[in-house]
Amino acid sequence: MFMRYSKLFGKTVKEAPKDATLTSHKLLFRAGYIRESAAGRYFLLPLGIRVQQKIQKIIKEEMDKTRAQEMLSPVLHPLELWQETNRDKATGYELMKVKDRREAEFALGGTAEEMFVDVVRKFQISYKDLPFNIYQFSTKFRDELRARGGLLRVREFVMKDAYSFDADEDNFKKTYQTMWDTYTLIFERMGLKTVAVESDNGYIGGDYCHEFVVESDIGESRFLMTADGKYVAHEDVAKFTKEQENIGEEFKPLFGMKAVRGNKMEDGVILHKKPLWQQIKDVLYEDENDRFILVIIRGDLDVNEMKLKHLMNVHELNHAKEEDIRSKLHSEPGFISPVGIKDKIEEGVELTIVCDDSMRTIRNAYGGVNEKYRDYENVNIDRDYSADIEGDVAMAEPGFLAPDGKSVLVEKRGIEVGNIFQLGEYYSSKMKNATFIDKDGKEKKFYMGCYGIGLGRSLATIVEMYHDDKGIIWPKSVAPYQIHLLDLSSKFKVQSSKLVAEEVYKKLLEAGIDVLYDDREDVSAGVKFADADLIGIPVRLVISDRNGDKIEYKERNKKEGKLLSLEEVVKRLTPEV
Amino acid sequence: MFMRYSKLFGKTVKEAPKDATLTSHKLLFRAGYIRESAAGRYFLLPLGIRVQQKIQKIIKEEMDKTRAQEMLSPVLHPLELWQETNRDKATGYELMKVKDRREAEFALGGTAEEMFVDVVRKFQISYKDLPFNIYQFSTKFRDELRARGGLLRVREFVMKDAYSFDADEDNFKKTYQTMWDTYTLIFERMGLKTVAVESDNGYIGGDYCHEFVVESDIGESRFLMTADGKYVAHEDVAKFTKEQENIGEEFKPLFGMKAVRGNKMEDGVILHKKPLWQQIKDVLYEDENDRFILVIIRGDLDVNEMKLKHLMNVHELNHAKEEDIRSKLHSEPGFISPVGIKDKIEEGVELTIVCDDSMRTIRNAYGGVNEKYRDYENVNIDRDYSADIEGDVAMAEPGFLAPDGKSVLVEKRGIEVGNIFQLGEYYSSKMKNATFIDKDGKEKKFYMGCYGIGLGRSLATIVEMYHDDKGIIWPKSVAPYQIHLLDLSSKFKVQSSKLVAEEVYKKLLEAGIDVLYDDREDVSAGVKFADADLIGIPVRLVISDRNGDKIEYKERNKKEGKLLSLEEVVKRLTPEV
Repeated sequence: MFMRYSKLFGKTVKEAPKDATLTSHKLLFRAGYIRESAAGRYFLLPLGIRVQQKIQKIIKEEMDKTRAQEMLSPVLHPLELWQETNRDKATGYELMKVKDRREAEFALGGTAEEMFVDVVRKFQISYKDLPFNIYQFSTKFRDELRARGGLLRVREFVMKDAYSFDADEDNFKKTYQTMWDTYTLIFERMGLKTVAVESDNGYIGGDYCHEFVVESDIGESRFLMTADGKYVAHEDVAKFTKEQENIGEEFKPLFGMKAVRGNKMEDGVILHKKPLWQQIKDVLYEDENDRFILVIIRGDLDVNEMKLKHLMNVHELNHAKEEDIRSKLHSEPGFISPVGIKDKIEEGVELTIVCDDSMRTIRNAYGGVNEKYRDYENVNIDRDYSADIEGDVAMAEPGFLAPDGKSVLVEKRGIEVGNIFQLGEYYSSKMKNATFIDKDGKEKKFYMGCYGIGLGRSLATIVEMYHDDKGIIWPKSVAPYQIHLLDLSSKFKVQSSKLVAEEVYKKLLEAGIDVLYDDREDVSAGVKFADADLIGIPVRLVISDRNGDKIEYKERNKKEGKLLSLEEVVKRLTPEV
Repeated sequence: MFMRYSKLFGKTVKEAPKDATLTSHKLLFRAGYIRESAAGRYFLLPLGIRVQQKIQKIIKEEMDKTRAQEMLSPVLHPLELWQETNRDKATGYELMKVKDRREAEFALGGTAEEMFVDVVRKFQISYKDLPFNIYQFSTKFRDELRARGGLLRVREFVMKDAYSFDADEDNFKKTYQTMWDTYTLIFERMGLKTVAVESDNGYIGGDYCHEFVVESDIGESRFLMTADGKYVAHEDVAKFTKEQENIGEEFKPLFGMKAVRGNKMEDGVILHKKPLWQQIKDVLYEDENDRFILVIIRGDLDVNEMKLKHLMNVHELNHAKEEDIRSKLHSEPGFISPVGIKDKIEEGVELTIVCDDSMRTIRNAYGGVNEKYRDYENVNIDRDYSADIEGDVAMAEPGFLAPDGKSVLVEKRGIEVGNIFQLGEYYSSKMKNATFIDKDGKEKKFYMGCYGIGLGRSLATIVEMYHDDKGIIWPKSVAPYQIHLLDLSSKFKVQSSKLVAEEVYKKLLEAGIDVLYDDREDVSAGVKFADADLIGIPVRLVISDRNGDKIEYKERNKKEGKLLSLEEVVKRLTPEV
């Protein structure tokens, strides 16, 4: 492919949009790769689509190597399918819906699990057909509340989504590992070093999943890991070792006391002159069904709402209002206690007490009495209160002990560029006829997984990782062109190089090399150099009278160029077969 | 690429869906290329996407040769853009709309003129940047009332849509001709012989356009052409020579007479004993604004409603109701007359009289009097009535004289696989800032064109043109694989050919040849042959003990195969460089 810059649609501009804060947003805009249509919805300009196609090609090649099969599903999904799995509700506002003229309802696909199960169940699948992994590149929609700058979090994007069908968990584990390895390789080929981070499955379902994250300070994914990389988990799901505190202490008698203090945890510490960890932290939520959920957790820990949602199987959690705490629970903000609260609450009010398992690591705790300015000391689980549900709802923090009980967790941030999900029978059990005929002639549910990569997100992440203050520095594998050919003959400074440049351009095309040729006559050498740096093509060739019959060959990521003959240039650029 | 048929997702089935009537629908379903999701919305299975990708590659190659530049626009178009050109109303029910959580409204793109103008006007375009032609491959939506069988008329499909920007009409004409030639070539490369048919622009706008049509009896496009192919036009727009009839006759006095007759044209002919062409045909419509439109046309011609809509600039035409003819126009169905009707109508009722120019080819016509059982004879335009609007609103029919006044029109049917539109300043005048800076420093409106090809429609059309009673016969250029390799060793008939087949498979892959390898062990040779014929890959290779160390090489469109050595096979198949 070849392109004369004079005719390229989407030339460079000096200024990025005022609201652009991220480097990739600014550079992709200025260099002429993207333009915004509406918030979070982008045009890919001719340079931009070329990079996205390179990314797509890498993904396709590696997916095909694993014997995954590309296909294509409609973008509009019959809403009945999402109702079959109840996901029309679970995904909430992120799902866009549309009605056609005959009042048939469709979801604008965000992911396509139901669609792929639906097409698979149209066939009689036998164990001999398994396993298979089918995937597509298609437009996806997410009605995000906030669309971040540029291509990093958008409302519409092209995604590669794959869905695997295995006979059972053992077979699936091989598929999962293959996809894990493939993802690592795909991102490597794009120049991205990824970490597989255990993560939350959001509205996808299933038991476990991993985000592929590129470490970056601008990333939205916060995760915790051990120095040796053996444990890596998103903050939403990260586990840690809750060390035992004073568990050897003898039980002391519960007693109430006057406690004129503020509502904060440190007020309790000061008043009781005891460690923060010995204090009971009570956090009261209301879920989407107006049920109150009282979470009891060790004072030095925080509640992880994602863990809590999963434990309780709820979609929405809001902090309870102060007036409700008083009128409905007959308790007092800042003085809530699990002790006796169930006896106090208004009739008809539902309250579930959830206890983080950290409460098993302390003894003789202190905290409120459900009355203003009164506290208990020596509160003990089982003796003084009991929980409806016990589990891990604590937020891991850097410095905490890893689950192995030895390593220390450190905190990282990164950009999620892909993810892989175990789905198990989550979909095949909810959807009818999602079965295959096994060896014994019996119908068996598919054991599934799914695997996504956002192409635009990958593109922007590459720019975040590969740039300098002058512009983008594309890795060769995804660069829009291999060569940026500059002819310095301008109408401002007449040179005889024009003919040479045209000749070089022709020769490079004949050699099958992708060239962007800056043939403009009305801009200065300085502008051409600056544009080349901004656009970020890996190799710049300069044709100038100053260079005699040599061509200046300079790599974007190097300071100095060298003078080469055309033959040497072609030799350097011809792809190794 | 390579695929073992045992692992292919989307195997053949015996029965097509009961409602499938078209050959392409039946064969693509049975052979495992497509499955329906909802009516008019299709999955492309792994075999199907491979064909579509071949089609896409051909289109891209030829578009790129013309220096057109691929890019990508969002699928959801801000509705404001469609409002800017008023197309949100013009397209009516075919346009689907969706609201996001912030109540922003979007159109699901059916075509993307506004989007492309919108992205272009985000740049400062100078005359030096022109011309350029930008295009995309993207999902399009049409809320069709009826979705025809298979991929021929669907509600969601991938389309290549291109939009050209020129400085003026002279330059545009070159672009239009280039696209004309390119389309002819693109379809030729797919194996489709197309005719460029002058056609109606529908809701696209502009002054002229052409459909690229593949002649076929199942096609929805009816068009008329001369034997020499110099005039080819869709029935919606086809012109013809309206020969003068009795125009030399002297004017005779108008007179009314009793006319006890039926409401049909032939009833008038019988009663008056005069030719059909001398009778006035009155057709009364109501438009979307409740205006009545009375069309007067020569008795032997029919009204072309598409021409009428354009002439009147209306979107909807319904035949007037009998009771309205009586109560609002004080006339009588079957006896309507332009003579004096404007004096009779109810106050507040709007009536426009449209006269087909065929009325200028006859004299002393006969027809109704706006009263039951009364007719006029010797009605003459200008003398007895006048029209608000005169023009050509007649339907061309086979046998009519072509516009050249010499050739005869013949009728054809065909499938529209692409179209090209002159848009002129239709969009650039409606949309703000759709301008470039011309040489003289002044802002000038873009002169535009647009160009579409439906990929799925092309795919199905190829099947309509290339099949026999056993299945599809793909042209090489679009076949999903080059080779269908059959190993006849089955568990029903043990053979030693299995190892040979695996070896051949490996060799073909090494030679870079795309192979679909039927490695199934549990089906008979007969089933494998039938499947190969159904799937339609151009070359079938059979490995069988019966053939010794030779391989049977048979082309899908030939009856007999021949025995070749592996080396000969590879040589035959290696693509010429």
